[in-house]
Amino acid sequence: MPNERLEKQIGFILEIDKLKHILRKTILSDRSRRENSAEHSWHIALSVLILSEYTPDEAIDLFQVMKILLVHDLVEIDAGDTYCYDEKGIEDQEVRERQAADRIFNILPPDQVQNLRSLWEEFEAKTTPESKYANALDRLQPFLLNYFTNGQTWLENRVKQAQVIKRMQPVQKGAPFLWEYVNELIKLAVQKGYLEE
Amino acid sequence: MPNERLEKQIGFILEIDKLKHILRKTILSDRSRRENSAEHSWHIALSVLILSEYTPDEAIDLFQVMKILLVHDLVEIDAGDTYCYDEKGIEDQEVRERQAADRIFNILPPDQVQNLRSLWEEFEAKTTPESKYANALDRLQPFLLNYFTNGQTWLENRVKQAQVIKRMQPVQKGAPFLWEYVNELIKLAVQKGYLEE
Repeated sequence: MPNERLEKQIGFILEIDKLKHILRKTILSDRSRRENSAEHSWHIALSVLILSEYTPDEAIDLFQVMKILLVHDLVEIDAGDTYCYDEKGIEDQEVRERQAADRIFNILPPDQVQNLRSLWEEFEAKTTPESKYANALDRLQPFLLNYFTNGQTWLENRVKQAQVIKRMQPVQKGAPFLWEYVNELIKLAVQKGYLEE
Repeated sequence: MPNERLEKQIGFILEIDKLKHILRKTILSDRSRRENSAEHSWHIALSVLILSEYTPDEAIDLFQVMKILLVHDLVEIDAGDTYCYDEKGIEDQEVRERQAADRIFNILPPDQVQNLRSLWEEFEAKTTPESKYANALDRLQPFLLNYFTNGQTWLENRVKQAQVIKRMQPVQKGAPFLWEYVNELIKLAVQKGYLEE
């Protein structure tokens, strides 16, 4: 194949296939198995369209949110999925993910590297309205799967109400109209014994 | 939960979780297992950004392409994935998928039903530049996985070169600058014995 540029692009597309092997803690709604990060990314990218009315900012660029969400977990190909309540894993998560970004995005042709990498950086920085909405959806989706599987993952990891409230702060910031709903489900989860008080 | 509208939206988000169980014929690049339609949808939605320079139409709306691809396989939740070389399955595929669309999209609040359903309809009609590019990526990705796993799925199903050439016509129509590359890989696949002549 003479076309070096296209070869790099195809190389990147084949490389990111590996995200389908990165298992999260979250289980699917029928409880049959754990979810992987590619499935999760698809699920939240599509949710952008379903829940866009709950963003506080009407001028939000939903295309940008979608791009951010499709890319946001690619670093896990090298760095793995860090469980949010794993305090030890979180310590060096940033270093591991930055090294992963250095390798993975650089598979692309030079002019595309920063385009893609900046989406991940925007997600991590949580400063733009698009990033805030993306982070809200990234937290909401596993919360829903946890709640509607009767808290199975929470129970297995003895998760407490206060931890979930803290974990769900991005919903309050990025999609505040959904916070009331989330807060209500957290209370119900405690009542039903899915979450420790 | 008092909010009937939000309840429908969350119901839809939980319903589409089932796409993660729909297995395709294609296998992952490490050949460990078959790919599911949620992973496939994520992969091609992200490929939109990587390969956009190969569309013939510079004015193409990439956000629309991405939306189409995130939604295009949802009907498989009821209708299943129809293998493209399964002539019997293809006979009633359209009817099965239309019934699936009637059920699945109608889980949404009434004003969102047509918004989402029209993305699937646009994909199926293959008339807009966005739909053509979406269809090209939908065909290209499994082709790449087939080729770079040494044709394992082609060999298992005794697929012939002419079938793949026909199957890949949407690449010629939707991303013609990629056609030359695909055509070259098809020839190599025959040479290497991945495809029957």
